Amino acid sequence: MTIHIEDLSFQSIIGILDFERVKPQDVIINLTIDYQYESNFINYTNVVDIIKFDLTENKYLLIEDALNKLSLKLKREFSSINTINLKITKPSIVPDCKVSVSNLYNFIS
Amino acid sequence: MTIHIEDLSFQSIIGILDFERVKPQDVIINLTIDYQYESNFINYTNVVDIIKFDLTENKYLLIEDALNKLSLKLKREFSSINTINLKITKPSIVPDCKVSVSNLYNFIS
Amino acid sequence: MTIHIEDLSFQSIIGILDFERVKPQDVIINLTIDYQYESNFINYTNVVDIIKFDLTENKYLLIEDALNKLSLKLKREFSSINTINLKITKPSIVPDCKVSVSNLYNFIS
Amino acid sequence: MTIHIEDLSFQSIIGILDFERVKPQDVIINLTIDYQYESNFINYTNVVDIIKFDLTENKYLLIEDALNKLSLKLKREFSSINTINLKITKPSIVPDCKVSVSNLYNFIS
Repeated sequence: MTIHIEDLSFQSIIGILDFERVKPQDVIINLTIDYQYESNFINYTNVVDIIKFDLTENKYLLIEDALNKLSLKLKREFSSINTINLKITKPSIVPDCKVSVSNLYNFIS
Repeated sequence: MTIHIEDLSFQSIIGILDFERVKPQDVIINLTIDYQYESNFINYTNVVDIIKFDLTENKYLLIEDALNKLSLKLKREFSSINTINLKITKPSIVPDCKVSVSNLYNFIS
Repeated sequence: MTIHIEDLSFQSIIGILDFERVKPQDVIINLTIDYQYESNFINYTNVVDIIKFDLTENKYLLIEDALNKLSLKLKREFSSINTINLKITKPSIVPDCKVSVSNLYNFIS
Repeated sequence: MTIHIEDLSFQSIIGILDFERVKPQDVIINLTIDYQYESNFINYTNVVDIIKFDLTENKYLLIEDALNKLSLKLKREFSSINTINLKITKPSIVPDCKVSVSNLYNFIS
């Protein structure tokens, strides 16, 4: 089974530029979680809450670092996760385009 | 050949929360069906009717359960199906994002 | 190299229902063509013209048949083609959704 | 890690038709860059600047040629790049559709 959280939009401190450290900017999160569905399921509301809390709290400098930390946090919370594909978009940081960084995390040993 | 039903939108009772059991909510269905096209074809109107009927009738608690049951129903109806990729979206259940669950069903032995 | 023709929209007679035989309906074509780019290239304007002419002229009964015939026609015209992924959408034929049929044609022997 | 630059939109001289040589037209660039993230990262602002400069400066005749040259330029600038998937769209050159050419460049030996 694959859970999709699409276009989760909120504001967060993220980035290395001076103004990015003081002023929250728009971020858009897209992720898919592949997990083993048997008796128990993953509550998508919990997933959304963890993402929002982590990205609001940690004021990451690099999207790359945010991806690594947040994906590990989700795996620790939901052990049935096999893979996470996580993408963080800054829709307003560069004119005339949308920039994102994503990564695929494979927890199947 | 692959049939695509994209953004099929209607209302259905689905979910485990109290208000989800009494009030129909928006659902969006996306699916692709790979099938062996020879002399006979799969009528997309029938596929749409089966989906709407099943999801309206069964008032599923979990999207995961709905995916499993509905995909089997489609395979029983159309024996030429090889694979079904089925996704059910609740566009309004979590603020600021769209949540979905999908699964790929492979009927090729 | 891959050529993409996205959301090519026009009207065409296509389908098996009585009203579909007499009244042109909206169709949307999406295709990707993988081809060997060396000295010569494939002119996308010619590709678009062939698609429009073929689907307007032939009044296909089944989308599946249109996909098979049109892909062969394109391959005959442009011998450097390796694969064609062709999708025909009827955006208005079924209420509350978009229905399409697609197929991937691999001409690499 | 994968960097995504989505729908980068500006104007550029590109194409072989007479009017395309004198009048800049709309172009839309989409690219993904897979790279090895360790201590250093790729600055997306630099990537965007290189793309805009290259496509504005070089007045390419063929999209295919632009893809080949631009991808090599990016690889030379950022040695940690593994693959580049680059797509150039001319949204206004053919009526009723969007045409693009893309290519995947794999620099992993």
